[in-house]
Amino acid sequence: MSVEFSLSEIAAYLEAEIRGESELRITGLSTLQEAGEGQLAFLANPKYAKQLSETRASAVILTADKAADFKGNCLIVDQPYLAYARISSWFETSTLKPALIHPSAVIDSSAIVAKDVYIGPNVVIEAGAEIASGCHIAANSYIGARSSIGSNGYIAANVSIYHDVRIGEQVRIHSGSVIGADGFGIAPKPDRSWEKIHQIGGVTIGNDVEIGACTTVDRGALSDTKLGDGVKLDNHVQIAHNAVVGDHTAMASYSGLAGSAKVGRYCIMGGDACIVGHVTVCDNVQLTARTLVTKSISEPGSYSSGSTPMMPTTEWRKNSVRIGQLDALARRVKKLEQ
Amino acid sequence: MSVEFSLSEIAAYLEAEIRGESELRITGLSTLQEAGEGQLAFLANPKYAKQLSETRASAVILTADKAADFKGNCLIVDQPYLAYARISSWFETSTLKPALIHPSAVIDSSAIVAKDVYIGPNVVIEAGAEIASGCHIAANSYIGARSSIGSNGYIAANVSIYHDVRIGEQVRIHSGSVIGADGFGIAPKPDRSWEKIHQIGGVTIGNDVEIGACTTVDRGALSDTKLGDGVKLDNHVQIAHNAVVGDHTAMASYSGLAGSAKVGRYCIMGGDACIVGHVTVCDNVQLTARTLVTKSISEPGSYSSGSTPMMPTTEWRKNSVRIGQLDALARRVKKLEQ
Amino acid sequence: MSVEFSLSEIAAYLEAEIRGESELRITGLSTLQEAGEGQLAFLANPKYAKQLSETRASAVILTADKAADFKGNCLIVDQPYLAYARISSWFETSTLKPALIHPSAVIDSSAIVAKDVYIGPNVVIEAGAEIASGCHIAANSYIGARSSIGSNGYIAANVSIYHDVRIGEQVRIHSGSVIGADGFGIAPKPDRSWEKIHQIGGVTIGNDVEIGACTTVDRGALSDTKLGDGVKLDNHVQIAHNAVVGDHTAMASYSGLAGSAKVGRYCIMGGDACIVGHVTVCDNVQLTARTLVTKSISEPGSYSSGSTPMMPTTEWRKNSVRIGQLDALARRVKKLEQ
Repeated sequence: MSVEFSLSEIAAYLEAEIRGESELRITGLSTLQEAGEGQLAFLANPKYAKQLSETRASAVILTADKAADFKGNCLIVDQPYLAYARISSWFETSTLKPALIHPSAVIDSSAIVAKDVYIGPNVVIEAGAEIASGCHIAANSYIGARSSIGSNGYIAANVSIYHDVRIGEQVRIHSGSVIGADGFGIAPKPDRSWEKIHQIGGVTIGNDVEIGACTTVDRGALSDTKLGDGVKLDNHVQIAHNAVVGDHTAMASYSGLAGSAKVGRYCIMGGDACIVGHVTVCDNVQLTARTLVTKSISEPGSYSSGSTPMMPTTEWRKNSVRIGQLDALARRVKKLEQ
Repeated sequence: MSVEFSLSEIAAYLEAEIRGESELRITGLSTLQEAGEGQLAFLANPKYAKQLSETRASAVILTADKAADFKGNCLIVDQPYLAYARISSWFETSTLKPALIHPSAVIDSSAIVAKDVYIGPNVVIEAGAEIASGCHIAANSYIGARSSIGSNGYIAANVSIYHDVRIGEQVRIHSGSVIGADGFGIAPKPDRSWEKIHQIGGVTIGNDVEIGACTTVDRGALSDTKLGDGVKLDNHVQIAHNAVVGDHTAMASYSGLAGSAKVGRYCIMGGDACIVGHVTVCDNVQLTARTLVTKSISEPGSYSSGSTPMMPTTEWRKNSVRIGQLDALARRVKKLEQ
Repeated sequence: MSVEFSLSEIAAYLEAEIRGESELRITGLSTLQEAGEGQLAFLANPKYAKQLSETRASAVILTADKAADFKGNCLIVDQPYLAYARISSWFETSTLKPALIHPSAVIDSSAIVAKDVYIGPNVVIEAGAEIASGCHIAANSYIGARSSIGSNGYIAANVSIYHDVRIGEQVRIHSGSVIGADGFGIAPKPDRSWEKIHQIGGVTIGNDVEIGACTTVDRGALSDTKLGDGVKLDNHVQIAHNAVVGDHTAMASYSGLAGSAKVGRYCIMGGDACIVGHVTVCDNVQLTARTLVTKSISEPGSYSSGSTPMMPTTEWRKNSVRIGQLDALARRVKKLEQ
């Protein structure tokens, strides 16, 4: 894997002001601290500004004010982090394969598969499924009956997509993830065993969505479970049946929505932040790590629960036992006040 | 996918009293709010009773008292939610395949496979495994040596079942799940590295069990890890080595049992509720979301820990820092009282 | 599956003092409580000492002081639990297969595969990958381009290893796990949608590492994500991009490291213990279950947060609501004190 671009080519793509050797060859990206010969670094977080004077990077992406103090080659932009994100695609090490349908793939004759796709070894595509132009479906993945994947989709190895799942364009799904498994629907019977509620809805996923590894998006009980456009899910995320994730919302690892929960657009859910069933969170909400949302939120802003101060275990034991006495303590204080 | 039944056929199956057009054609199920022409809805939760007057459903499943105020076609039963669950199977969109052993499946010659089963593409079945009558094993799943799957089992795509796993009848296991991986057994060596404890037990799973997606049930260290009859596990559940889940217990997403933990029969574990190692929970216990059970429970009832009130992050910070001062606060109150 | 060893063979391997019938045939391992004829049990935890007088085990591994009161056959060692761990490998029920490359495996012609390996059905190995001597790669697993697996590696069924992942010797990875998926790297665009940051680092894993089922280790954004030698990860663990796990650290189920978090050597992370991004934990730290580490730890020891006392739900509600009033309560106490 070896790529090489001139600083001026990169500057043109980023619409950056270039300062220094425009024909400099750039062979990789790195952080200010770790960069070496031929590498392009970036300064996004002001707390790393002091690394600028010592970096061995061949060039640096930074803002105009930071560039003032910097003698080296640089690309001046308004948003260095975004510029780094945009140029990162040029250095991607995962190579998409040329169009090919591997002979070991098992594709039902009624499936509709575009011509310019890569279908890897042992991929199984069931009846009525549709794979649009430019898709890459890696080895050992499964696409259920009547499910569709929009153009330029990337399905990594060992992904499972059940039947009746509608996926938009430019969607990436990582290994081990499962889209469209049955929601957890059970009804108690008189003898207290459980009757299964068959999950007859599907899943609808918008455009430009990315889904991490070992993440699950269950099918709906009656209507579809939905992910909007631009949704980004990390690993080990759980989206239960009939949940709805609004456009451009990002959910970190272990975060989840219980059945029929809704989270709005432009929300950010920290690690392990969960929303209980049938609760709605409005647009533009941030939930810090470990927050459990048990009531609907109708005002944008940042919300928290659950994460408590960390301390030595012996101290924690002394303090946490008091949590179980809190109501009594509060009553004692009230009595003292009287 | 298109099915159609008459209201009278459905009434007969549900042993429901029918009111209205018995020959009405029903083509789908829906909620009161979303139902349209041809759809059958249900009223189970009283808080949706007001939707009854506005529903566009062609018929509704409800109780006799609610039917009194309703002019439309209806099916009268004692338990509408259970009736809906039971009839949902008629509208299932996942079609079981006819009996077939796909030529790409790799089945050891010593495996015993019933004649009327579906074994999908690229399924691998190792030596001595047994697949009973009526089983459906979807593409790319793996069944290890000497493992057995009882009659009418449904194993979705990309499921991994290790060796010596005994699965009862009518068991459903969803994609990405792993049954029988090694338990997390390690013993410290004098140099503080870890010696692996080989996990020589297996897994025993009862009848009528359903296991969600990306859920793990580890094999036992010495004897078997066990799931009783009628157990229902959601996605991302963890059952560690030698844990025991009692009959008809339901566990929501991210809930788990650590090593040798036991949960009784008819229990319900909310999302992320976990039981630490070697702790026992009796029958008929409910654990709310996020509860961490660190001591055995011997009385039925509902138990909680961990889930704290949610609030704006700035307020949470002020309050949560006080948790770390709680013991001191309690002592100050005591002093004031003296 | 049937194995048999004499007590003297086992004693020799464990360097144990033997007392009793040295030619006794041992056919299995068990606990003191469950052992029967032909089984070898062990007494490691003093709280089970009273089971010694009633055990039906044919022989017991124990310490010299416990052996004093025991009339049966025994093996005397300093560390019975470690001795049990070491001998457990003799009774392992998972049989490694003889060297074979299954004809259905799809191996790129540029991959370098040692001669004495087992490559199961439907395994896919991409260009430039290297599989060293003694490896066992079970059915339906995927090894990406240029990834390498050191000698005697064991990759279970349905494992996904992306490109540019470097794995040391004697590494075991369980089913459903995903190594090298893209880290969760996104940068906000002016319109508040997300720009993907392509993850161009890889993953480096040391020797003697074990990774449980449905666990994810993401590739680095720029440089590699790293697991040291002897690291042990349970199921459902999350290691985010550029995180570093030090040698011989063990992480229980649902524990995780966010992006660029570092945990030192010889640490133990309990279930669901998580370290937030860019935070560093030094060597020899224990984190109890549910702890959330939000600040770096520089002193060895045991740390906690988050796990609160469990109680009946009605009591918990009364107490937990007070957490939201804690700051006000503390101020009231201060006022009383004045």
